[in-house]
Amino acid sequence: MIEQIDHIGIAVKSLEDGIRYYEKTLGLHCEAVEEVASQKVRTAFFHVGEVHLELLEATDPESPIAKFVEKNGEGIHHIAFRTNNIAGQLKQAAEAGTRLIHEVPFEGAANKLVAFLHPKSTHGVLTEFCAEKKA
Amino acid sequence: MIEQIDHIGIAVKSLEDGIRYYEKTLGLHCEAVEEVASQKVRTAFFHVGEVHLELLEATDPESPIAKFVEKNGEGIHHIAFRTNNIAGQLKQAAEAGTRLIHEVPFEGAANKLVAFLHPKSTHGVLTEFCAEKKA
Repeated sequence: MIEQIDHIGIAVKSLEDGIRYYEKTLGLHCEAVEEVASQKVRTAFFHVGEVHLELLEATDPESPIAKFVEKNGEGIHHIAFRTNNIAGQLKQAAEAGTRLIHEVPFEGAANKLVAFLHPKSTHGVLTEFCAEKKA
Repeated sequence: MIEQIDHIGIAVKSLEDGIRYYEKTLGLHCEAVEEVASQKVRTAFFHVGEVHLELLEATDPESPIAKFVEKNGEGIHHIAFRTNNIAGQLKQAAEAGTRLIHEVPFEGAANKLVAFLHPKSTHGVLTEFCAEKKA
């Protein structure tokens, strides 16, 4: 079951410019900056109610975020839905005819399991499921 | 002050196809379908935790949603932040150098006051402020 929106991923060219914008214009507070080497990105997190905004800056021209920005410019990259049953959620999506990018969840940042649906079959929204890793 | 994300607006070509996708693939429940004649859209709302997903289908080729879909295809159209002080939020944004689409909030759906920032000065994210109308 989907419990809530976990985070909204936003691609930016410069993390520093993005952080300054969200702090000055919206009055939000940047909680953490983290590099995720496996995804070739640096990220900045902002808490907004129960949701996080996750700014994403590419650290390498081969990063998916670099390719996204080259094609689309800066903007919203993905929505992550938090679930208590990621395998069940993927099964439901596949049975509904939705194309999966990952059939098996993998370990993302912050000790979470994550998997993505393909935007070609999600009405244009790159969609992530994420779940707390069980002990 | 920004309190939470109120809703995420998602442009779709067909509201019926969009509703079916979010119900079958994600297991969400469509709460309401509403036509907003002033914006030339039909909308469908889904509750996800404290946030709503708002699917938007154009009802006229001149609708901003029709133009968005023609240019970008289906996908995320805007993020709305709920605030308890929309005038103060607009003032803060303008002072930070952000371009406003609306300098004065106007009445949106569901008895709310709304105003938008221009995506050219928000790192590519069409940004809405919304607030409950005070009695």
